[in-house]
Amino acid sequence: MLGGGPYTTESDNRGPFLTARRADVAVVGGGPIGLAVAWRAASRGMRVLLHDPRPGSGASAVAAGMLAPVAEASFGEEELTRLLLDSAARWPDFAVEVAAAAGLAGSAELGFRTEGTLVVGRTADDLAEARRLWSYQQGLGLPITALNATELHDREPLLAPRVRGGAHAPDDHQVDPRRLVAALRTAAESAGVVFVPSTVRGLDEIDAGTVVVAAGCGAAELTGLPIRPVKGQILRLRAPGGEAPGFRHVIRGYADGRSVYLVPRHDGEVVVGATVEERGDTTVTAGGVRDLLHAATELVPELAEYELVEAVAGHRPGTPDNAPLIGPLAGRPQVVVATGHYRHGILLTPVTADLVVDLLASGVPDPVLAPFSPDRFDGYRSAPGLTGPGWDGPELAEPGLAHPELANRELAHPGLAASGPAREEIR
Amino acid sequence: MLGGGPYTTESDNRGPFLTARRADVAVVGGGPIGLAVAWRAASRGMRVLLHDPRPGSGASAVAAGMLAPVAEASFGEEELTRLLLDSAARWPDFAVEVAAAAGLAGSAELGFRTEGTLVVGRTADDLAEARRLWSYQQGLGLPITALNATELHDREPLLAPRVRGGAHAPDDHQVDPRRLVAALRTAAESAGVVFVPSTVRGLDEIDAGTVVVAAGCGAAELTGLPIRPVKGQILRLRAPGGEAPGFRHVIRGYADGRSVYLVPRHDGEVVVGATVEERGDTTVTAGGVRDLLHAATELVPELAEYELVEAVAGHRPGTPDNAPLIGPLAGRPQVVVATGHYRHGILLTPVTADLVVDLLASGVPDPVLAPFSPDRFDGYRSAPGLTGPGWDGPELAEPGLAHPELANRELAHPGLAASGPAREEIR
Repeated sequence: MLGGGPYTTESDNRGPFLTARRADVAVVGGGPIGLAVAWRAASRGMRVLLHDPRPGSGASAVAAGMLAPVAEASFGEEELTRLLLDSAARWPDFAVEVAAAAGLAGSAELGFRTEGTLVVGRTADDLAEARRLWSYQQGLGLPITALNATELHDREPLLAPRVRGGAHAPDDHQVDPRRLVAALRTAAESAGVVFVPSTVRGLDEIDAGTVVVAAGCGAAELTGLPIRPVKGQILRLRAPGGEAPGFRHVIRGYADGRSVYLVPRHDGEVVVGATVEERGDTTVTAGGVRDLLHAATELVPELAEYELVEAVAGHRPGTPDNAPLIGPLAGRPQVVVATGHYRHGILLTPVTADLVVDLLASGVPDPVLAPFSPDRFDGYRSAPGLTGPGWDGPELAEPGLAHPELANRELAHPGLAASGPAREEIR
Repeated sequence: MLGGGPYTTESDNRGPFLTARRADVAVVGGGPIGLAVAWRAASRGMRVLLHDPRPGSGASAVAAGMLAPVAEASFGEEELTRLLLDSAARWPDFAVEVAAAAGLAGSAELGFRTEGTLVVGRTADDLAEARRLWSYQQGLGLPITALNATELHDREPLLAPRVRGGAHAPDDHQVDPRRLVAALRTAAESAGVVFVPSTVRGLDEIDAGTVVVAAGCGAAELTGLPIRPVKGQILRLRAPGGEAPGFRHVIRGYADGRSVYLVPRHDGEVVVGATVEERGDTTVTAGGVRDLLHAATELVPELAEYELVEAVAGHRPGTPDNAPLIGPLAGRPQVVVATGHYRHGILLTPVTADLVVDLLASGVPDPVLAPFSPDRFDGYRSAPGLTGPGWDGPELAEPGLAHPELANRELAHPGLAASGPAREEIR
């Protein structure tokens, strides 16, 4: 009965008893990447445990879910751009497979949308900044088409009249990360992944053929790798009257030198993101929310009438070069790392899961992983060993702002120390 | 044993039984005014019932608690200004009495603070607008002293360097309405008020010597009086690190033509208010929050680093002349109204309670109430009778924004129809 499961029957002088069969793979971290690795591995017949006290409660709960390899392609990041494009190309099939495995009607139920992204600028300076980047992207052969103000307003009439120009990236799609996580959990459970709601404090606690560390910022403590939290504040608005938002494209814009993105969902939600702050707290600040709302309403004035339903902060796992860490840990081939995805965790989920599971099956890293080897920062190692102060689940997002049950609910939440730099950059 | 309480012992052929003794006074509405009336009446020996399914859940849960008769004195409102000043003069003793009756150490535990209010302006236009008003106030003999930029920054170093001038109103104090309501409930209970957590749908449901309608906007349905909801959005910030805010005075300012007020509390909270919108929904909007945060950080830039812990909307009960309705209902002396306090409900609580309880005791309205007679708008009556569609508790504040338990909590709250005018005025 338990033959294929995680338990096996043994006996001692008191008779037979159940014991845990050693897992082939133990995944630490139940965000999209950990869940996708677990699901794919279990689907290939491996016995998989996934350790997370609160799956899906980390950065993915905060993320907007832009799948934007083109608009995210930056100067000097050709190798990362190739990985982003590779993963973006896998997304349509991945979304269909996840949805099917979760019993959903289709990828639309994950919030997967393919209208593409408009990159827009409001002032000459903003537009020049945007143009500089998309010219670079065009030079890489990426599909991005310049549009004048009339063409932009034809596509999205709600854009502010002062938006002067921009570009269309037709292949930059979107997904709803919260729906994605829910579906991946169902898919993983259906494939036989066993969820262990425990806190992993050191990798030596785990007995498995291979351990996959997909713990976001928490991977720093478990592996000593140089991963730092990069705070992001993000808002969720809702269109009035339960309607869908009045625009269809993801809109990335520059307003007064600040970058902001607006992600419309069919269910009426509009995600407005995000600050990029080099600090480890998760305080939702007056300045962060002010700047996001200002920039958003400068690009789409009608958003001023939308309901503000949530303001929240989370931590992106950043690395010294802000490219991910994917592959075996130096000298410990039984520990595979999949973290450090910074702002690209949702986009990179399919390619990361595929490459990690290939590695688990073959024991050999794909050459495409070479630039993302976890040992490329050996000089940066923050700790020599693998036993840090422990890991208490994924980097928890600040509970943030959302509708309480009562208006006069007393908020016991104390203010968190905001000791970081005062300047906040929105990207 | 029950002689002084709301019950009395009667007998029939099956023996003695308890029956409700007819109350002398039934108060409908458990906001500060209803609670204070009930407490004061019970303290004078009356048998008092208070009907409210959720006491303290109306406008007071949203209110900032400025006690600002001087800064609120407006052109053409001399009679209202006199009432505001009368009530402000009662506040210090009232706060001491409420605190004592609730078993608190002193009025400071209600958040009662007497540093006074600074009225400030940032641009020449803003300052001219403020100066026009405080010259009028000085003309009425009110204590308000002009200050230049240096004097202002000496008093509050955190004021933005660009604040050009202002004035100090030393008698414009503050209280924390949520603490006030909690203390008034305790005081009323101690005085013998019986709380009835029921919804009153018509005054004919109530059997009492006199009914006091202190139901805020809900009084419109119960009495037919012309009371309209005036929406206000308000924010609560919190200073970093659990510290007290870096400023002590209430600050009322003009920034880019918009008025905003900042109320610092010893516990670290800063209230930022408020929009004034002629609409009946309670949606917290992106534009409302944006404007409040912008104006607040224009006056005190450091607030950008404060945590945003709550955004909420409520309804002020407004009347055609925005002065309150206090006194017997025309032709129904057994129904006394105490509502329509618009933006002045907290400030006017002491004088309203005193005058209403005097009326209950004597049967004769104080002449000072003449300008606030409920029958002054007889032509406006929205309904001829006293039985409207019913009253389901005080005008409920929108639950608004506050820290949920988890960042990825799914928000089921649907967007409310925002059918009102797009323009939002902050005062």
